[in-house]
Amino acid sequence: MKKKLLIIKKFGGTSLSNIDKIKRAAKLVKKEVVLGNKVVVVVSALGKTTDKLQSLINKISFNGNSKEIDTILSSGEQASSGLMALALKNINVKSRSFLGWQIPILTNTSYGKARILNVDIKILKKEMKKGITPVIAGFQGISSEFRISTIGRGGSDTTAVAMASKLSADRCDIHTDVEGVFTADPRWVKKAKKIDQLTYDEMLEMASVGAQVLEPRSVSLAKNNNVVLWVKSSFKNVKGTKISNSTKLEKRNVSGIVYSKNDSKITLLGIPDKPGVAAKIFGSLADEDINVDMIVQNISSDGKYSDLTFTISETDLFKAKKCINSIKNDIKVKNVLPDNNVAKISIVGIGMRTNAGIAEDMFKALGKQKINIDLISTSEIKISVLISRKNLKRAINVLHKTYSLG
Amino acid sequence: MKKKLLIIKKFGGTSLSNIDKIKRAAKLVKKEVVLGNKVVVVVSALGKTTDKLQSLINKISFNGNSKEIDTILSSGEQASSGLMALALKNINVKSRSFLGWQIPILTNTSYGKARILNVDIKILKKEMKKGITPVIAGFQGISSEFRISTIGRGGSDTTAVAMASKLSADRCDIHTDVEGVFTADPRWVKKAKKIDQLTYDEMLEMASVGAQVLEPRSVSLAKNNNVVLWVKSSFKNVKGTKISNSTKLEKRNVSGIVYSKNDSKITLLGIPDKPGVAAKIFGSLADEDINVDMIVQNISSDGKYSDLTFTISETDLFKAKKCINSIKNDIKVKNVLPDNNVAKISIVGIGMRTNAGIAEDMFKALGKQKINIDLISTSEIKISVLISRKNLKRAINVLHKTYSLG
Repeated sequence: MKKKLLIIKKFGGTSLSNIDKIKRAAKLVKKEVVLGNKVVVVVSALGKTTDKLQSLINKISFNGNSKEIDTILSSGEQASSGLMALALKNINVKSRSFLGWQIPILTNTSYGKARILNVDIKILKKEMKKGITPVIAGFQGISSEFRISTIGRGGSDTTAVAMASKLSADRCDIHTDVEGVFTADPRWVKKAKKIDQLTYDEMLEMASVGAQVLEPRSVSLAKNNNVVLWVKSSFKNVKGTKISNSTKLEKRNVSGIVYSKNDSKITLLGIPDKPGVAAKIFGSLADEDINVDMIVQNISSDGKYSDLTFTISETDLFKAKKCINSIKNDIKVKNVLPDNNVAKISIVGIGMRTNAGIAEDMFKALGKQKINIDLISTSEIKISVLISRKNLKRAINVLHKTYSLG
Repeated sequence: MKKKLLIIKKFGGTSLSNIDKIKRAAKLVKKEVVLGNKVVVVVSALGKTTDKLQSLINKISFNGNSKEIDTILSSGEQASSGLMALALKNINVKSRSFLGWQIPILTNTSYGKARILNVDIKILKKEMKKGITPVIAGFQGISSEFRISTIGRGGSDTTAVAMASKLSADRCDIHTDVEGVFTADPRWVKKAKKIDQLTYDEMLEMASVGAQVLEPRSVSLAKNNNVVLWVKSSFKNVKGTKISNSTKLEKRNVSGIVYSKNDSKITLLGIPDKPGVAAKIFGSLADEDINVDMIVQNISSDGKYSDLTFTISETDLFKAKKCINSIKNDIKVKNVLPDNNVAKISIVGIGMRTNAGIAEDMFKALGKQKINIDLISTSEIKISVLISRKNLKRAINVLHKTYSLG
């Protein structure tokens, strides 16, 4: 007899944007139930609901109270959990919805980006024993103040992984509108292929750079709790991408290529080379909640000055320029050069750890195409370069070919 | 020094259908707070939100589970309570939202039409002492099963009155898109006037016949708990209609004229005059959840047969015909005559109790206009007649003049 599985199935907003899609998602759940498996469903809000609610909030109040915002936004997942439970009952799958406060999913009081402290699984287990398929409203919990909290955008992925971990699920399916994680963005690279398997670390590096299919936080949580993740289509019956710690992975040097074109670069020319200057610059940026990504510093030939370049999100560029201008005299920088026309491209692969020459291949391939590299940053399993935005598509395609990903 | 008041202010969906209206409602609340009064706000869902959610529900499931439906529908008031709290904070009124389960408002388990069993006011009182204006999500409560329950369409009126009763409020303002209760529908009668005062009983009779401004249930609750109700505009600064038990009311014979044009009439001709036949007919209609309104029975001249006429909601006509046909042979009725072209018109007034001749005036006035009366039914403070639908507008205007309501 085949082992009966416990499966978490998470459906995102694009998988629930109309009635037909909700019904289709319900059928995917039923398929597992019919096989004798137990399923716990986690849902996001329908379609663009959260965006619409956020726009109402923005129109009412510029600096809204995060407790009220969480109460408002969480209503989207509340409605979708009930609708999914109805859709399941309608095809004879016994089901009920669970809201964050009903389980409860206890979080801290950092409303808007709360951290899950504990998930009580007693009621869930009891209902599942009765043959009921729970549908959990994602993204939401309850704080010790007895108020609804949300765990950040894309938080339903994190809810799903937290449930998988707490319930010791056999796997956690993240259903989405693509068939899995691809070697490169299929809109940009014709020969992009679905990746069969990835390690958590590879997925983390890819997610943080631009593959929008999974929240990096949920991947970290899955890694720490050994939750086997699958990124799968909500619509097509194809295998998807498995994300795990498996050592049986085929050894690939590079698993995928990801990019981000929402970066901006700021270069500070001629900073006197004194201790504490970098701390002053990045401290003042941090005070303004500006995330800095890549940083490169060169010392001039006479050793008296240095040039510093860093990248930030394009949306923070205005704030960052203001911030640097306010300390300009203090740090005695000679010139500030902002640049909005950059893009970051990264190759990611677990195989890099043990294979020399991968970076070299990257630089050579780009060089042959006369694509200039502005900045380079590396991690153990990722190499990122900053290039001119106009060269992005060409660069992705050339690298995709270089590492034989097609 | 003027006495400080405790006021409940309820805003319906039409008063919250866009951002400007929400902000305007918030200003009405602030006006009272600035005067030193305490306000508890009760809100419905924004605009047509509940209808939209209901239509999604209907598309997913024909016989939906009422627990899930309540979870889905209550999300509308959840969002609006948070948005109203934000709007108040934005104009410097300290505020926070309260959901049914947070207060809690405990109901029985009749999901979809639950009855409020108890309202715990401890947390509300505590917050109000801190100078906070609570915004309560209307329409919703929590059952002993720890699930969200709703108390029926228009339930926010009932929530408001329940809060007024529990908090011993000085008054309960029901804000709506009209200026108050009118002597007749202003769209039909040019000279219709706003009524300054009504008794609970008058309002009950008017509400149950067709004046859509208040839920009959909330009026009953207000009557039983002596809650002074005001029906007021959300937009114009005018006085509104006061509904109370006051004996200081000016003595009017007739306070207002209301109508309903969604009725249908069924006549059963030639029923053998035997005991138990009426019970059989209305029993079978009740089994199908069909509400019967007016009933009139005449016995034929020879005493052997009777004719029976009753009215039902137009939406139930098809079901009712099927129902009567299924027992047609059993009760041996000779002929069944359905009629869809009827309307009910009612005059309502506390003065009727003590004034003879009011009914006579009504029948005379209609007779003079050659408007035929099909059925008559009366209560202590109401006289209703069924007429042909095409005569409705003329009848309302003639009666409005007859009782000098203009």
